[in-house]
Formats: sequence, C-alpha cells, structure tokens
Amino acid sequence: MIPHTGEWTSQANGRFRGLTHSFRRIRELGALNLLLGLYLRRSFTRAGILIVHPGFPLPRVTNRGGHVEAGNCSFFPGVHIECWKGATVRIGKGTYINRNTEIVASRAVTIGAGCMIARDVLIMDTDQHPVGGRALVSKPVEIGDRVWLGSRAIVLKGVTIGHDSIVGAGAIVTKSVPPHSVVVGPAATVIRTLQEQSR
Amino acid sequence: MIPHTGEWTSQANGRFRGLTHSFRRIRELGALNLLLGLYLRRSFTRAGILIVHPGFPLPRVTNRGGHVEAGNCSFFPGVHIECWKGATVRIGKGTYINRNTEIVASRAVTIGAGCMIARDVLIMDTDQHPVGGRALVSKPVEIGDRVWLGSRAIVLKGVTIGHDSIVGAGAIVTKSVPPHSVVVGPAATVIRTLQEQSR
Amino acid sequence: MIPHTGEWTSQANGRFRGLTHSFRRIRELGALNLLLGLYLRRSFTRAGILIVHPGFPLPRVTNRGGHVEAGNCSFFPGVHIECWKGATVRIGKGTYINRNTEIVASRAVTIGAGCMIARDVLIMDTDQHPVGGRALVSKPVEIGDRVWLGSRAIVLKGVTIGHDSIVGAGAIVTKSVPPHSVVVGPAATVIRTLQEQSR
Repeated sequence: MIPHTGEWTSQANGRFRGLTHSFRRIRELGALNLLLGLYLRRSFTRAGILIVHPGFPLPRVTNRGGHVEAGNCSFFPGVHIECWKGATVRIGKGTYINRNTEIVASRAVTIGAGCMIARDVLIMDTDQHPVGGRALVSKPVEIGDRVWLGSRAIVLKGVTIGHDSIVGAGAIVTKSVPPHSVVVGPAATVIRTLQEQSR
Repeated sequence: MIPHTGEWTSQANGRFRGLTHSFRRIRELGALNLLLGLYLRRSFTRAGILIVHPGFPLPRVTNRGGHVEAGNCSFFPGVHIECWKGATVRIGKGTYINRNTEIVASRAVTIGAGCMIARDVLIMDTDQHPVGGRALVSKPVEIGDRVWLGSRAIVLKGVTIGHDSIVGAGAIVTKSVPPHSVVVGPAATVIRTLQEQSR
Repeated sequence: MIPHTGEWTSQANGRFRGLTHSFRRIRELGALNLLLGLYLRRSFTRAGILIVHPGFPLPRVTNRGGHVEAGNCSFFPGVHIECWKGATVRIGKGTYINRNTEIVASRAVTIGAGCMIARDVLIMDTDQHPVGGRALVSKPVEIGDRVWLGSRAIVLKGVTIGHDSIVGAGAIVTKSVPPHSVVVGPAATVIRTLQEQSR
C-alpha cells in the first residue's frame, strides 16, 4: 500500500541481509552504480562490493593514513569519510549511508551491518580541537547492527549505540544508547524501547 | 531603514500576493530565472510560473510516479522535491523555497500560498523506514498559508501547521501547530501567539 | 599521540596567532590555496592574506553594498558570506571558517581573532523576514576572540559571545554567552565555565 522507493526495507535475517541487499541492488541499479563503486573502492583499505548512487558531489574518503574498511555497502552523493592518521573506520555489510553524511574518525568509528544512515548525519569521535587547555579528546564511536540514524542526527565522541536502535531526526547523541531503543532530542534520551523480536 | 534584500516582504492581501510577487519578480529578475523556471516546470505535473534563482545544484524534482503541482513559486539552488509513487506534493502560489530545502512525500505534502521556506528545511511525511517490525508509517503533512519555516527546521509526518505560523530556526516539528503561533525547539512548542491582524 | 590533521591547534599567544597561523599555512599549503585566496579576496572590501582550501563550491561573498573585511583567515569550500546594503562583516586574523558555514549580515556581524568556526554553522543578525506585522528585526552579532563554534551551531540576531567560549555541536544560540563558557542545546545554556588560563 505504501509506495515502494527502492530503498532498503528487507526484513530478511540479519546475516544474509547485506548479501541479498547487494545482489538485489546490482540487478536493479546496473553498471553505473557499480562503476562508481569501484572508483570509490580505491580509497578504501579493504572493501566488499560498493554501490554508489550517481549525483554530485560523489562520495569521497579522505584517508590521512588510517584504515578504512567496508562490507557490501551503498553510498549516496555527498557522503564524506575522513580518517585521521592511525585511525580506523569500519562499516558493516548491507549498511547504506545517505546523502551528505559525514564521518570523522580520529581514532575509531565502527558502524555495524544493516544500518540505515539517513541524510546529513554527522558522526565524529573527536571534538577536532582541544578544549580548555587540555589535550584533544578522542573517544571511539561504536554503532551496532541494524541501527537507524535519522536525518541530521549528530553522534559525538565516546558514544556506543546498541543493536536495532533508532535515533530520531535531528537528535544529538552525546551518551551511549542501549540496544532496541528509540532516542530523540538535543541530548538524545530514550523515549521508547522496542520489542526484541520487532526487527 | 533596514536594507532590502530583494526577498519577498510584501504585506499585500493574501489573495493577490502570489501574483504581484511573481510579476514583481519577473520585472526584477529577468530572463535567466524564467528560463530555469521553465526547465524545472517540466518535472511538475502542473505548475504556474516558476522562478529559479541561478546557482548549483539546480533545484530538482524526483517524481517516482506521483502528482507534483505548484502555483507561481520561487525556488533557490539545491531544493529537492521527492515524490513517491501515488503521492501528492502541492505548493501554493507566492511561496518561495530557499536553498537546499528538501521535501519528501510518500503520501501527501501540502504547502499553502505565500509561505516562506528558509534554507536547509526538511519536510517529510514518512519515516522512510518501518520502525520496530511494524509497517512503514506515512502521514500527510499540511502547511497553511503565509507560514514561515525558519532555517534548518524539520517538519515530520502527520504535522499540520496553521495559517500565519512561524517555526523557529532549527526547530523540529513533531506535533501540529495552531494558526498564528510561533514555535521553537527540538520538540517544537508554542512560545507566542501572534495577533490575527498581525500579518 | 593524537593524530595531527593539519587543522589549527596552535597554543601560541593570541596576538601572534593569526600571523604564525598564516605563515605556517603558507609553507604547508602552497600556491593553490593562496591563488584561490587572492581570487576570494576580490570580494572583500579589505583583507589580509586569505587562504582557501580547494574544493567545491568555492567560498563566496555576496556583497549587496556593505563592508566586508577580514584579517589573515582560512576559508573552506561552501562558505558563504552575505552582506546586505550598508551592513558590515568583520573577521579577525587567524580565524578559520569550515565547510558550508553561512554568515548573513543585515547590519553587523563581527567575528574576533583566532576563532574556529566548524562546518555547517549559520550566523544571522536578522530574521530575514518581518514577524507579526512589525518591522524586520536586525540586531548585530558579535563573537569574541578564540571562540569555537561547533558543527551546525546556529547563532541568531543580537547575540554576543564572549572571548574563549565554546558552542557545542548543533547548539542554537539565541541569548548572549559570557566569556570562557561552554554552551550547548537548542536554547544554548552554559554547562561549564572554563578557567581563565585554560586557553
């Protein structure tokens, strides 16, 4: 009944999701997306099949000497991954990252499998500047499997987001989020807990 | 006294606003804006005179099989309207939509006449993904006449915003807003009610 | 220990910061940045050495008949300064302005020396539209020295931000901020006061 957008709404088992997702995509989307994906792949240390949706600016990875790794993933225009020297970015299979999302890893940003990262999301594991005369603070960010980050969500240093959680549009996540939670707001707090089987 | 930016500040009667706005614009802005408007118009199911302010990326409409309709309107660079299969987008006359604003309609997004939509606004009538094992939720968004949405405001599914209301910069509107209201904040709440005659 | 990004983290005395910053930059970055800087400089009424980091869209200044002035500063792609007729924009030396930040001055926006303006920041000294039948409100914005505005912060009309203060990611600053403060949230409030010597 609800119009289908071609976006990933598979309810398949998590382990196979990445694969079926990618295979379906390949059939649907054809050669251009795969070619752009091969081009993007060159910036990764290691990667599965990357699918890049056409449009400008193309997704890009600024690797200053770190480790950037992804499974079979989809990227939309404007995505930017910035990996500092010695840092690690890991993105699980079946995850897609929508338009203009930015990831900054000064130490480690890990994103699980089957995640849905909406447009204009910002994930940073560092303040990027020292605060108040102290050393620059960097704390790894870890995002579980099947997490959904809503449009314009901001995820800040040291945050862990549990499996199957949902972060509302525009939420600013400054503290860790347990699995199966729905969080919203400028200091994102849990407003609902999802049922285990609900995924 | 206040410098005039060429942006629409007419206090004319609502019924004539769209028209006088458009006519003034045509005189002021000349041929390029109209040509770009004619080009954009091809993506609409039905439209009045569209005026497109030059700049990149050009405004665009992704119509996946819905109905996209507008009166005499102005669009700035980066605007993106996404209309899903069977969905409807309607924009009233004299409304202008500023840079990088995005509208996603999975069912229906209606914007009234004489509205001022600021930059980086996001209007979505759907979560875009099913939440917690349930079906994908889509609820029409309806925005009245002469509504002003401030920069980076987010308007989410099921919201109705009454005539002459003002949504503050960065506000996230998750619940309906009565007419003549000023709402702000991450779960936008009314902070002031404007006088009826104040428009 | 913390990887160095080439971003400005100098702890030098404020008076010399702008200069050493610029000189270091010139050595590091070379001719392209300076050439782009010279190109951008033409849009300023008066400016020191401007450094522009390559990328699209190039930073730009829309000067509708005001006064736009900067010391030795760095600009990243997508920065946009809009100065209305009779208005003033002043940016102190050693300040850098990151990607996609926008400044709108209808009367006066002043940014001090050694400031760090993160990506997607929005600074406006006007609502851009009259509210509720009254005249358009414009109140100067003044930002002190060594202020750090986090990603996506919004600074609105009439706000003064004291020296050495820090505005958190996504904060919306609607009221003035005393020196040496850390403010966060959608109606940005002080959560911490930094030690005087801490800079």
